[in-house]
Amino acid sequence: MSLQKFDFTVSNLGAAKLKSPVLLSHVYGDTIANYVADDDHVLYHITLGAGDKDTKLQEYGTLEKAGPREKIYFNPDHVRAAVLTCGGLCPGLNDVIRSIVRTLWHRYGVRTIYGIRFGYNGFLGEIKNSIMELDPDVVDDIHRIGGSVLGSSRGGGERTSDIVDAIERLNLNQVYIIGGDGTQKGALKIAREIAQRGLKISVIGIPKTIDNDLSFIEKSFGFETAVVRATEAVYAAHQEAHSAINGVGLVKVMGRESGFIAAHTAIASHDVNFVLIPEVPFELEGPNGFFEHLRRRLEKRNHAVVLVSEGAGQKLMDQASQGHGTDASGNKRLGDIGIYLKERISEYFRSINMPMNLKYIDPSYIIRSSEAIPTDSMYCSRLGSNAVHAGMTGKTEVLVSLVNNNFVHLPIEVAVRTRNTVDPESSLWRDVIDATGMPVKMTNE
Amino acid sequence: MSLQKFDFTVSNLGAAKLKSPVLLSHVYGDTIANYVADDDHVLYHITLGAGDKDTKLQEYGTLEKAGPREKIYFNPDHVRAAVLTCGGLCPGLNDVIRSIVRTLWHRYGVRTIYGIRFGYNGFLGEIKNSIMELDPDVVDDIHRIGGSVLGSSRGGGERTSDIVDAIERLNLNQVYIIGGDGTQKGALKIAREIAQRGLKISVIGIPKTIDNDLSFIEKSFGFETAVVRATEAVYAAHQEAHSAINGVGLVKVMGRESGFIAAHTAIASHDVNFVLIPEVPFELEGPNGFFEHLRRRLEKRNHAVVLVSEGAGQKLMDQASQGHGTDASGNKRLGDIGIYLKERISEYFRSINMPMNLKYIDPSYIIRSSEAIPTDSMYCSRLGSNAVHAGMTGKTEVLVSLVNNNFVHLPIEVAVRTRNTVDPESSLWRDVIDATGMPVKMTNE
Amino acid sequence: MSLQKFDFTVSNLGAAKLKSPVLLSHVYGDTIANYVADDDHVLYHITLGAGDKDTKLQEYGTLEKAGPREKIYFNPDHVRAAVLTCGGLCPGLNDVIRSIVRTLWHRYGVRTIYGIRFGYNGFLGEIKNSIMELDPDVVDDIHRIGGSVLGSSRGGGERTSDIVDAIERLNLNQVYIIGGDGTQKGALKIAREIAQRGLKISVIGIPKTIDNDLSFIEKSFGFETAVVRATEAVYAAHQEAHSAINGVGLVKVMGRESGFIAAHTAIASHDVNFVLIPEVPFELEGPNGFFEHLRRRLEKRNHAVVLVSEGAGQKLMDQASQGHGTDASGNKRLGDIGIYLKERISEYFRSINMPMNLKYIDPSYIIRSSEAIPTDSMYCSRLGSNAVHAGMTGKTEVLVSLVNNNFVHLPIEVAVRTRNTVDPESSLWRDVIDATGMPVKMTNE
Amino acid sequence: MSLQKFDFTVSNLGAAKLKSPVLLSHVYGDTIANYVADDDHVLYHITLGAGDKDTKLQEYGTLEKAGPREKIYFNPDHVRAAVLTCGGLCPGLNDVIRSIVRTLWHRYGVRTIYGIRFGYNGFLGEIKNSIMELDPDVVDDIHRIGGSVLGSSRGGGERTSDIVDAIERLNLNQVYIIGGDGTQKGALKIAREIAQRGLKISVIGIPKTIDNDLSFIEKSFGFETAVVRATEAVYAAHQEAHSAINGVGLVKVMGRESGFIAAHTAIASHDVNFVLIPEVPFELEGPNGFFEHLRRRLEKRNHAVVLVSEGAGQKLMDQASQGHGTDASGNKRLGDIGIYLKERISEYFRSINMPMNLKYIDPSYIIRSSEAIPTDSMYCSRLGSNAVHAGMTGKTEVLVSLVNNNFVHLPIEVAVRTRNTVDPESSLWRDVIDATGMPVKMTNE
Repeated sequence: MSLQKFDFTVSNLGAAKLKSPVLLSHVYGDTIANYVADDDHVLYHITLGAGDKDTKLQEYGTLEKAGPREKIYFNPDHVRAAVLTCGGLCPGLNDVIRSIVRTLWHRYGVRTIYGIRFGYNGFLGEIKNSIMELDPDVVDDIHRIGGSVLGSSRGGGERTSDIVDAIERLNLNQVYIIGGDGTQKGALKIAREIAQRGLKISVIGIPKTIDNDLSFIEKSFGFETAVVRATEAVYAAHQEAHSAINGVGLVKVMGRESGFIAAHTAIASHDVNFVLIPEVPFELEGPNGFFEHLRRRLEKRNHAVVLVSEGAGQKLMDQASQGHGTDASGNKRLGDIGIYLKERISEYFRSINMPMNLKYIDPSYIIRSSEAIPTDSMYCSRLGSNAVHAGMTGKTEVLVSLVNNNFVHLPIEVAVRTRNTVDPESSLWRDVIDATGMPVKMTNE
Repeated sequence: MSLQKFDFTVSNLGAAKLKSPVLLSHVYGDTIANYVADDDHVLYHITLGAGDKDTKLQEYGTLEKAGPREKIYFNPDHVRAAVLTCGGLCPGLNDVIRSIVRTLWHRYGVRTIYGIRFGYNGFLGEIKNSIMELDPDVVDDIHRIGGSVLGSSRGGGERTSDIVDAIERLNLNQVYIIGGDGTQKGALKIAREIAQRGLKISVIGIPKTIDNDLSFIEKSFGFETAVVRATEAVYAAHQEAHSAINGVGLVKVMGRESGFIAAHTAIASHDVNFVLIPEVPFELEGPNGFFEHLRRRLEKRNHAVVLVSEGAGQKLMDQASQGHGTDASGNKRLGDIGIYLKERISEYFRSINMPMNLKYIDPSYIIRSSEAIPTDSMYCSRLGSNAVHAGMTGKTEVLVSLVNNNFVHLPIEVAVRTRNTVDPESSLWRDVIDATGMPVKMTNE
Repeated sequence: MSLQKFDFTVSNLGAAKLKSPVLLSHVYGDTIANYVADDDHVLYHITLGAGDKDTKLQEYGTLEKAGPREKIYFNPDHVRAAVLTCGGLCPGLNDVIRSIVRTLWHRYGVRTIYGIRFGYNGFLGEIKNSIMELDPDVVDDIHRIGGSVLGSSRGGGERTSDIVDAIERLNLNQVYIIGGDGTQKGALKIAREIAQRGLKISVIGIPKTIDNDLSFIEKSFGFETAVVRATEAVYAAHQEAHSAINGVGLVKVMGRESGFIAAHTAIASHDVNFVLIPEVPFELEGPNGFFEHLRRRLEKRNHAVVLVSEGAGQKLMDQASQGHGTDASGNKRLGDIGIYLKERISEYFRSINMPMNLKYIDPSYIIRSSEAIPTDSMYCSRLGSNAVHAGMTGKTEVLVSLVNNNFVHLPIEVAVRTRNTVDPESSLWRDVIDATGMPVKMTNE
Repeated sequence: MSLQKFDFTVSNLGAAKLKSPVLLSHVYGDTIANYVADDDHVLYHITLGAGDKDTKLQEYGTLEKAGPREKIYFNPDHVRAAVLTCGGLCPGLNDVIRSIVRTLWHRYGVRTIYGIRFGYNGFLGEIKNSIMELDPDVVDDIHRIGGSVLGSSRGGGERTSDIVDAIERLNLNQVYIIGGDGTQKGALKIAREIAQRGLKISVIGIPKTIDNDLSFIEKSFGFETAVVRATEAVYAAHQEAHSAINGVGLVKVMGRESGFIAAHTAIASHDVNFVLIPEVPFELEGPNGFFEHLRRRLEKRNHAVVLVSEGAGQKLMDQASQGHGTDASGNKRLGDIGIYLKERISEYFRSINMPMNLKYIDPSYIIRSSEAIPTDSMYCSRLGSNAVHAGMTGKTEVLVSLVNNNFVHLPIEVAVRTRNTVDPESSLWRDVIDATGMPVKMTNE
């Protein structure tokens, strides 16, 4: 119950005084959907043990509900909004863009919407034609394709002042920023620079992390699609392994600091025998190391599938294999654990003179460039419209998030402070152990 | 906050005194997943308004967490378990069966597991070869196919005494019953008859409702897959409508008493213009009726897609079209609203002399016989193993359910008392209105 | 060897004298693809028996090869081309449109290309905005979606004179007509009216028949996709049948006068037990009738899948069930054999007091509105570019067709004279019998 | 017309004198499919130029038609058949296995069918449990999964004498060998050793080459599926390239000595800008080299997709990058052109100081382990049954092949003598140039 220390209070540009053009009700029982009141909250922590029953709700930490308010801050006629996508690709980017544009246009009547091309770099004047006009026709069918129609790129977000200059030049008053941890840290700085300059510009983040590792965000958009696509790659690895003499299928999936994709894929695919993630240490050698367990599996069943998160086992690699420095998004460069394991496993079986056939699959680009599956697409659509409701009401420095199946407003500052990781003591990891039959520990001490 | 009146207390066959063979920890911080304590609970209601902050957690209604316990009731060597699937097909049936078998076998060491073929009827002695032995090999690949490898059928569940006789003859002490509302009502009667006979047999339900309409169950298995498949049918209807002169695509989806599939599909597909569900009344004729709105849409955009739940608009149909009586599962027979609308819409446009091309698609069997998508498959897998954990611990008269992303134990009695329906004042329906642009009301008064 | 009576000579508007802008070679061995000469031909009949070995090639019937010629008839600067799609939807329509536009634009430099909306009706002045301009940008992504971006409709083609008037008014000199048997008959009349008026307008047909029943056309575009989609529906029927007590899955697929989709789907799906097509007569009753064979199958295996072409068994239906008259494309209206069989089968099993569960699936609209699978899309692309090569060279009254894996020019007159049907003595039907295990005959005489 | 030098005469074990249990007709017009006569032939060459019209059919080269004969050589009661799969995975392996087993069992009544596990190695006594019994139940659902249920491996085929010893020990009289060029060369030696030993054992090959590069084989099984899956990878590369600043998507596909997969995928996907195949030489540097064309494309359109066959550009690589020696199947080891190009392209753009984002995708294992698409599955099914018809009739040293849409018998010797490659002067390559807009030549001389 360490949640109380977070300040979940959302910033506002000012009092929302205008009547919303979104015609809803605030009467229960009239069969018309209702406006959301700023008082409406959602519990964050929802599990309780024997001693917690008398605790009061408020102490459990509550988040402001997202959704359309009866009063809005911006006059739609004066809104000049922009949308941008930053960082690596993720299924659903186009769905979110589409939803933002359509909600602004159809629900609020906003007629000036820009797409900033190639992320923050599109603000910096170094890319030609980096501003495009958006309307419902332009975005009508974009949810059917993967990628981002706006383009995306890493970096640029550290040039806060230049970006705010550009925002001013474009005379924007709402900026919707779709991106991950690094991007949202940039958004926070932008919002604060805006505040310092005394501007009334709403900065709304839509959290993007295919790794599903942002805090206080139950499920990131694109994550479900990523699991579905990763499962297809695992299936290929399984067939390769199964058809060979002592076949090993090795698949690397995204997950720099958290193994959510690997964990979910392992359960969803039913074909994985070993899952290696950043959160759970493992050794390669020794009587309880991974190699020995892999060898035993091959002896017994003749084939095995290994699923590894890109961030797993970084400590195992020697200096040559390890990554160095950071990329343009500020992410630490990782050594390639997939290639490393492929070589080490091969070496090991040569050393014990046991024939082994390894096939290595890295489906990362196929996964992240996929169009969203329909259920994910639906989620993106709702994220996007809730972002617009937040923006029109004058919220700022805020992410739209899903918590316990409710859309909420989450201060950017809270979201970027920590990361979400797979808890090895959770039911999720327990179910991975169950689904794979892998050992609980693969270390020797 | 009307939840307090429900009694969420779960029945037990007796004290669980045996050490579980599932080796987990009860120490936090040792990186080994933990047993669940019977004290662990989950809040059911999680939203709160201005006045609720001082309410105590307990008053909000709490549910017992599902999962493996440290102590179990049944000695695995003595367990004789059975699994059956009842009612209509639903994606994921085989995944649940597979998970139950594998968890019993691999986690608990149970070696006697029967599949009862064709639902309750398989107990009644009228089907030859209705008992099949199950083990991990038999179920190894069944999650890759749709349908139920056990077969399914409606009805039979009302013959409580015969079924309990059969259970006794087979000397079963755990029965896993996968089925919907009617099936679970039957399971409740069976469990009570068992209790009355003084037998120690655990009856565990796994709720199945492709309509997603069971109470206290956040998301029924197969539902996500149903939305994905329904979206494909809507896409076909959209292409047909879009390529024709005044084209209308009409799609009927499952949803006897609740419009969840239709509502989710409408948002997920981005192609639907009108959604008709049982919960929201509508009229066909008159200045604010559906026909007039459809006409206007065609005038403006030349095409339209209409998505209707099978249970919608039952009152509109005259006696000839309406359904009569109930089927073998005890479900009210419905008139076919799809065919009815197809004819009435055609008639209407003939009457106003406006050319119109309607294509009607009923994808129901294609939806329900589909294999589960991977994310759904993962959910089924977790449902099945939690059901076994419940059974082994000696729980009975209980459903395994997902509430606020946590697996919980839910007394069958509570689940079958009411139905879950789409609340027209909820954010879900608001998002349907947003996504479709349809009028909030299509009635004339 | 009855082919000699066909006149395979293709009509030309006049001598092709201009240098083609498509830069190819006519030198073999320079590793540059070559122009096609009008002398290049393809054999139509390619099987021979013992007595045919001395026959000369020419007597076997030869077709002119399609492809780019060194000399063209039209000056690209003066070309005003139009494309239209007629009749029911078929996978690949957009691929063909896209290919025609791109080949005209990129390969020949044509800059005036119109899309005529909603088929022949788009020429008739009764639809607003029925002429749209096409260029590579407009068609860039249309191959990713099903349907026809131009829209399609039945009928209108009989108004030859009005259509030629419209063609003259638009000052067109190339018309690309994508459509089936009825459409191409219309195209032939249009081409002849054009000739009679002394106009130099090329009329090129691209044969469309999802049923695959046009003569001299090895494989119609969209057919492969249709088989893939139909296989998915059969799979659903199989799962439904397999999961029920005496389950019968009944699927109706397209095929008005020929059972190609049904025959191919039966072999491709591996799940079908009975195939009913227009070419092979069958009886329902009697000791060797379909019902009796179905009953035996159920007794033995408890489930069965029946696949029926829409044109099968028309004679069985009584007058009430049979169709009457013709639709706007001139196609005979058919009675609905799917519904008819569903009712008759149910009736039969009631009459013999045998429980039976029938699920009926009609996937027609889902099949025909699908986007083309990649291999089909490739075929469409090649069809479209060969159509343009024919048009630019001044060919007219000609279809582009695939014969023995070669693209050829086929006089429209030859193609529309007869229909292609499944030969019950062919290896195709033999393989259906093999794949299904169905009886060779289901008649009683 | 260099075909006459091939000897297309098929070997027989002896006269076929037994009545076939496959009940067909040899009467035309009785609506029952007919037996195939050994006289029935198919033309191989079917295109002709101006001077060929008087040529006699026979001189054009003819192939014996495959299919069931009225008289067979083997008494089904005495048949002991074996099936094996060799070399790398390919979509459809299981479909062929299934069809062989089912045709032997259901059509001919053969009851002794073995699967030899892991290819030729399964004969050599070094793998435990390498012989499995096959029947229709075992293979019933195997077409739904990828890989080979028998397992596969490279090599072993050179141990002719040991293999024939094993065949004798198992008392086999029909051996069905599914594999590629190297495998069929081995089969030929095996068949000749068998002949030399005076044994009456039929050796039938089913040609497998995902590269589609076997001579006299119109389309290898699995090839269509490979194109469909490769198209999906290209689509991912396109989205990555399109969403980045100067994005380049690089995809490597199978094709050691021929670029068929690349050529077909380029046309099918509509997204490729450059195709590099073994048959068409290209240079990287210089004013007409690939780098310069790629640079221009990026300048103009900001993104590009490059598709490369694994066997392309081997001469470009320096000794370090080039492959050395051969693998166990006797295939020359290739250097990895994908990795090589990835590095060289990156280097080039760094050298000219132009930002560029390259994403490299190698989907090979995902492609080859895929289950067959339905149309491919149908083809496999027909290949397998024709192989059995050939075997039962006592043919040997023969492949079953598709030529001009007819199934034929092809002497193994003829098939393995040369390879099929993409002719740069063919209409296929012309259509690749059209579809991509790439230059006809990328060399500087």
